Amino acid sequence: MSSVSPVIIVKVSADAATEQPDLLAVEEPLEIRLGYGSRDDRRQRSLAVTMRTPGHDPELALGFLYTENIIQQAGDVVSVRHCVSDADKTGNVIRVELQPEVIVDWQALERNSYTASSCGICGKTSIEAVQAVCSAKLTDEFRLDAGIVNSLPDTLRQRQRTFTYTGGLHAAALFDATGSIHLVREDIGRHNALDKLIGASFWQGWLPLQQYGVLVSGRIGFELVQKAWRAGIPLLAAVGAPSSLAVDLAKEAGMTLLGFVREGRFNIYTAPERVINPVAFSG
Amino acid sequence: MSSVSPVIIVKVSADAATEQPDLLAVEEPLEIRLGYGSRDDRRQRSLAVTMRTPGHDPELALGFLYTENIIQQAGDVVSVRHCVSDADKTGNVIRVELQPEVIVDWQALERNSYTASSCGICGKTSIEAVQAVCSAKLTDEFRLDAGIVNSLPDTLRQRQRTFTYTGGLHAAALFDATGSIHLVREDIGRHNALDKLIGASFWQGWLPLQQYGVLVSGRIGFELVQKAWRAGIPLLAAVGAPSSLAVDLAKEAGMTLLGFVREGRFNIYTAPERVINPVAFSG
Repeated sequence: MSSVSPVIIVKVSADAATEQPDLLAVEEPLEIRLGYGSRDDRRQRSLAVTMRTPGHDPELALGFLYTENIIQQAGDVVSVRHCVSDADKTGNVIRVELQPEVIVDWQALERNSYTASSCGICGKTSIEAVQAVCSAKLTDEFRLDAGIVNSLPDTLRQRQRTFTYTGGLHAAALFDATGSIHLVREDIGRHNALDKLIGASFWQGWLPLQQYGVLVSGRIGFELVQKAWRAGIPLLAAVGAPSSLAVDLAKEAGMTLLGFVREGRFNIYTAPERVINPVAFSG
Repeated sequence: MSSVSPVIIVKVSADAATEQPDLLAVEEPLEIRLGYGSRDDRRQRSLAVTMRTPGHDPELALGFLYTENIIQQAGDVVSVRHCVSDADKTGNVIRVELQPEVIVDWQALERNSYTASSCGICGKTSIEAVQAVCSAKLTDEFRLDAGIVNSLPDTLRQRQRTFTYTGGLHAAALFDATGSIHLVREDIGRHNALDKLIGASFWQGWLPLQQYGVLVSGRIGFELVQKAWRAGIPLLAAVGAPSSLAVDLAKEAGMTLLGFVREGRFNIYTAPERVINPVAFSG
């Protein structure tokens, strides 16, 4: 399945309305299933359905499982493969086979979605729930020059070929302290783009990502900071704005959060000490 | 609770790094609970938790219930109120009391989230699921001048005060064929902004919204088209790009879908007949 889809549109400008071919970002559902349980009692259960852009599905599944705290290391996973039982739906169901030793807390997963038993919820309890899983301290040793921060959007744009075509995909990019981009993943959903990036890193054995930062093309909400913290990422930067709860969680994590990284400027919301020479690049 | 939150940031530009006050879009979880069942057997159940920007919570809850096909008319609802049992969490739990006659199909709602029983899924089955609920034909009588389409982003910007401050909120605007904006709702989540708009219209008795279009500030995915169809909206326009499945569903619905509405241009993806004079405004 491709991540872009051709279409004929009517393009309306000030002096003409013309039919022309165009490309759309593909959006299709992906069902993630888990195979789990003891050797004598293998079971299967549907875990989630997410609307995503096809491509890098195994990474998306692994990143999702890792950031949901279901798997901890590559050894927890026996296999990841697309189900092929129904030709019509090929490519939209992926099954992750876990080692029998891996215990899945289904109740906790359901609470995550519905919190049926809690009396109520607020940002504070959301942050405490994340802390219970992501207690790891983020490294103090990652440092990033402000001039490199400003170079990131252009570098990403050069790498992000699909985005150029459709304007419809979010991107997440993994970069190091020299500004080199090691990995770019794209998706119609910004959470999925980050899950793909983390899933790829998980599979490569790169986690925790202590010597990397991540740039995302959109805005930063609570869940993106949660995923980044879980993966050990000390610096998260975005072309768009962060939310209040994203900033609160980043503060709690000791993560550096940068927003509005574009046109040679950016804002530092938390942990500014990781950004060095914030004015040196003025020449 | 406010929809913006003050913060101190470090603003880094080419020649200075200065501390200054800034405003963030607030993100907080909202739990939607249903009170339902017969008069003798009143029950309560948690339906969903969504990350949202506080403000217009009752509209968000009603719009969510309507677009999920749980309620059909204002008479289905006895009351909507915030729970106040726990002072810490005030404002983040909302309870909708339904009439005893309203039957809630919890199984269908769970299938919606998990599709545990289905063999697999694809865009085609997603579209069929929406068709089962949204079989209503959209009106052919709504027509919009291309010049008015081009005026919408500016009109919205003038109305969208919070967005101007934070850059972090999505907006959905309800407009008529003359380009007048009747209602604007904002949220950190684009689905929530549209749910608030539909919930407000539901409460006002304006549904189906046959004589209105909706403009959203971001991109258009499958779920936005689904919600718009359910509310009877014949024309959906966006500042950003639509996805492939959004275009497929709009085609099925006979809905006019416009994208990249900005800087005096736009693209028509489906049902172009509702856009009149596409070049007349060139003078």
